[in-house]
Amino acid sequence: MGMKENVSKPLDRLSSELAGDMAAVNTLIRERMASRHAPRIPEVTAHLVEAGGKRLRPMLVLAAARLCGYQGDSHLLLAAAVEFIHTATLLHDDVVDESEQRRGRPTANLLWDNKSSVLVGDYLFARSFQLMADTGSMQVMRILANASATIAEGEVLQLTAAQDITTTEDIYTQIVRGKTAALFSAATEAGTVVAGADPAVQQALFDYGDALGIAFQIVDDLLDYGGATTTIGKNVGDDFRERKLTLPVIKAIAAADADERAFWERTIGKGQQAEGDLETALEILHRRGALDAARADALAWVERAKQALTAAPDHLIRDLLGDLAEFVVARVA
Amino acid sequence: MGMKENVSKPLDRLSSELAGDMAAVNTLIRERMASRHAPRIPEVTAHLVEAGGKRLRPMLVLAAARLCGYQGDSHLLLAAAVEFIHTATLLHDDVVDESEQRRGRPTANLLWDNKSSVLVGDYLFARSFQLMADTGSMQVMRILANASATIAEGEVLQLTAAQDITTTEDIYTQIVRGKTAALFSAATEAGTVVAGADPAVQQALFDYGDALGIAFQIVDDLLDYGGATTTIGKNVGDDFRERKLTLPVIKAIAAADADERAFWERTIGKGQQAEGDLETALEILHRRGALDAARADALAWVERAKQALTAAPDHLIRDLLGDLAEFVVARVA
Repeated sequence: MGMKENVSKPLDRLSSELAGDMAAVNTLIRERMASRHAPRIPEVTAHLVEAGGKRLRPMLVLAAARLCGYQGDSHLLLAAAVEFIHTATLLHDDVVDESEQRRGRPTANLLWDNKSSVLVGDYLFARSFQLMADTGSMQVMRILANASATIAEGEVLQLTAAQDITTTEDIYTQIVRGKTAALFSAATEAGTVVAGADPAVQQALFDYGDALGIAFQIVDDLLDYGGATTTIGKNVGDDFRERKLTLPVIKAIAAADADERAFWERTIGKGQQAEGDLETALEILHRRGALDAARADALAWVERAKQALTAAPDHLIRDLLGDLAEFVVARVA
Repeated sequence: MGMKENVSKPLDRLSSELAGDMAAVNTLIRERMASRHAPRIPEVTAHLVEAGGKRLRPMLVLAAARLCGYQGDSHLLLAAAVEFIHTATLLHDDVVDESEQRRGRPTANLLWDNKSSVLVGDYLFARSFQLMADTGSMQVMRILANASATIAEGEVLQLTAAQDITTTEDIYTQIVRGKTAALFSAATEAGTVVAGADPAVQQALFDYGDALGIAFQIVDDLLDYGGATTTIGKNVGDDFRERKLTLPVIKAIAAADADERAFWERTIGKGQQAEGDLETALEILHRRGALDAARADALAWVERAKQALTAAPDHLIRDLLGDLAEFVVARVA
């Protein structure tokens, strides 16, 4: 999904706190990834699953469950299920976007082929539902089935909104819920459900995951235009070149004069980009305050995430989740 | 999956018997296919869902449930779920095989694009799990999650076995279970489960669906070489040109002399095919009795399917399911 998962500091502390659980989840992931009949499957998935991902989503499951005082082990099954859904979407995203690099390695569809990426993604998706069934909780099944539908819907919506400069902030939020926030909020909510938390706490952790996911994606969008600074980093401009309607651009288009509108129509709408256009885009984004406005939105989502946590039990992990939310937006402070 | 679903006569009788249920399933399919946020989704799926498919798999769900005296309506949810899984695999198969025609219409990925096919397939898969969750039966979830994993595994196995002339009949059976039989047997088994049938009846209908699915696919393989006759029909030879290791070819390779082995290695293994090779292939298949042997296998699976039904309740629908099994193989009698 193009997110730079630079959330290491509070996540490292969460990792230490949940180290035993995470080791068990990693073992479970390796076991359930295996296929007796089709050895190609772990070959394809190992590439992604062992590529040093931060395991942010399974961590959110574990954190939510432990925060609610859970002492069983269904949260391990659920954490593995969530990571499988995430990995399946990455595999399908590789096919879709023909992206050439992910996490610094060749994508699966260059190492293997489109067929393997589609089918192995399907396999992981099926495996994730088996893991959920093993939790024995119908509510967990429902939460993750709903999240899976929202993810696919968001991706389809992103396809149809791509390069359409009339895309609104409402549509953007729906897309972001699909591509990022739906799995975050499903992870945290389902974690409370296996722990048997009461509905208010379930809702609180859902809201936390949702707001965290949206903040995360807005920050990611900002970083692609160099954050709130005017310095152009080395990975700046990918979204511009791929003609993505991200939040800063949507805000700049809403405030555009006739010349700026023509610029966005040409570069994003029609994809006619020339030398110097990225610099012009950045200049307009700054002039219209679009980067600052997007950053303010991200900060507001972080506040919502932290506010949601006030309804959660008082616990070290609750504090770490609050720190995680602040850290996400600190990347563009 | 390349099956020619010419099973109309007994299926027509089943359709009449289950007409009210099927109308309700069709309504449910249209409702659940809709997406408030992403109108592209029903556009893509309508193409497949309304393309005049025989609805064989949902019919198997309904038949199994009614056969067990079921009077509720969870079997409708389940039938729609099974059709969504089937449609999702067709969409993903279109991406995978770059097949140009399905059911006489352009495939989704020619009408739309690969991205839409992958993502809309994912959406339908998620929707199918929502429908299952609505049945409230964890056992149903487990059966269909297992079937989904077997389907994906079978497809991956087919990829790795493609063009490999050392493929055995055992591997062939695993592939066929994945591509066809797993969803048949899940449909019939889950139908008995929502009906609250006892385990012996669940097993009987599972066995029926499994054997029916395998017979179905073997017959399909045979038809691709013109059935058991020596007449070459107009669609004969697709599998040969696509270098598929189908049952007749696997049997012929097992019985091959050195010259024949070299022929299969060149045409299927290396894909170096010339004018007249299909005729030579057919000649070898007949000489080695490979078509007759495959036909005998299909007949044996049909016998197993009918045998399994003896453990099911005495019911008009049971007789129609028996007729359906016989009709499948009558296509190559």
